[in-house]
Amino acid sequence: MPIDPQSPIVITTFDWVPEFARGYVRDLRPRWACEELGLSYAVRTIPVRNRPAEYFKLQPFGQAPAMHDGEIAMFETGAMLFHLAEKAPGLLPADGQARCDTMTWLFAALNSIEPMNFELTRLGFAGDAEWATLRRPSLLEMVSKRLSLLSDALGGRDWFSGQFSIAEIAMVTVLRELDDRGVLGEFADLRAYVERGTSRPAFQTALAAQIALIDANEPKKQEA
Amino acid sequence: MPIDPQSPIVITTFDWVPEFARGYVRDLRPRWACEELGLSYAVRTIPVRNRPAEYFKLQPFGQAPAMHDGEIAMFETGAMLFHLAEKAPGLLPADGQARCDTMTWLFAALNSIEPMNFELTRLGFAGDAEWATLRRPSLLEMVSKRLSLLSDALGGRDWFSGQFSIAEIAMVTVLRELDDRGVLGEFADLRAYVERGTSRPAFQTALAAQIALIDANEPKKQEA
Repeated sequence: MPIDPQSPIVITTFDWVPEFARGYVRDLRPRWACEELGLSYAVRTIPVRNRPAEYFKLQPFGQAPAMHDGEIAMFETGAMLFHLAEKAPGLLPADGQARCDTMTWLFAALNSIEPMNFELTRLGFAGDAEWATLRRPSLLEMVSKRLSLLSDALGGRDWFSGQFSIAEIAMVTVLRELDDRGVLGEFADLRAYVERGTSRPAFQTALAAQIALIDANEPKKQEA
Repeated sequence: MPIDPQSPIVITTFDWVPEFARGYVRDLRPRWACEELGLSYAVRTIPVRNRPAEYFKLQPFGQAPAMHDGEIAMFETGAMLFHLAEKAPGLLPADGQARCDTMTWLFAALNSIEPMNFELTRLGFAGDAEWATLRRPSLLEMVSKRLSLLSDALGGRDWFSGQFSIAEIAMVTVLRELDDRGVLGEFADLRAYVERGTSRPAFQTALAAQIALIDANEPKKQEA
């Protein structure tokens, strides 16, 4: 589905991010869901530096993305995925065990796995600070233990929630970050899972759109 | 609503936890939701030590709680809160901005605030390890900045999602942990928010039930 400036769904994201964040801005999740669901969406940008005070009324932590659907506003990518899945069929079963599995794994991605990403990111930003050097081995060991249990839970299946769903959009994007950090190395099944998700045409279209936006604003930033 | 061993809703949790964890086991969240919604629930326990391998098929990370509703199984307290709110009215508006606000703040509690709790817990478990001593000030500074933005978002209202909802059950339990760690000190509004939530009769009943279960199993543990 092409981006359509007239769409009632409007994703607000940063106009530009540094090299290391390209392809990882979380607008990727609602973009991907829209592509899977065949929903058009518009994109609005805010400056990544000197974020307007007004934006904090929409996203209290100043992060990207935020989303509108007509007059309705929301933040948190989990809430956006849920909202989009209620709007068009295909990514959230209507009832029973399949619905519970989808919601369970959506929350698992965002509450049981992604927090490790946050901690690894903060460790990375600390560079060669002494605490970070001392902490790294035990944190990586904890991450590895948790991933081992996650691998057991996948148990050779294609998807955690039994079928491709909003849970998988969350989990694939979370595990892709861990993979690109090199911490998924020993878990061939989780790496294959990431590959299974990111090879979907809808993901590729969403990723290309995010990067195209940042590239388009690159010359402006270089002049600044 | 009293606990009813015949209820189709069965919360599985640990038979016992050490002193520091009493009142903080996450079964508190679905217990609280059941009390608010007037749903009876049954409790099943597993040994906290030597957790049965079978339990990891229900909760891949071996944590508490897990939940059944008849034949349907789930884990992740966010998914349990959502499931219970779909089962009985009152904690999740049916549509519009109110529904989006509830889902947004449910995910915000579990993905934007609780991960800081996880990191503080791991820091606490590290005791006086050198990395923990070196890291503590910058972590507490980050937590304080995030809480300051959260306080702005509350903006003097009673509830983040506009009315008491499953989002508030998640956020109150998350902020209560931060408060009991002493890191909510400067935010009188957030402390008042925690007090507003925890003074609800449904919370008090849920908390008392969790502690009664642990106390009942205390002599057995002392003998062990």
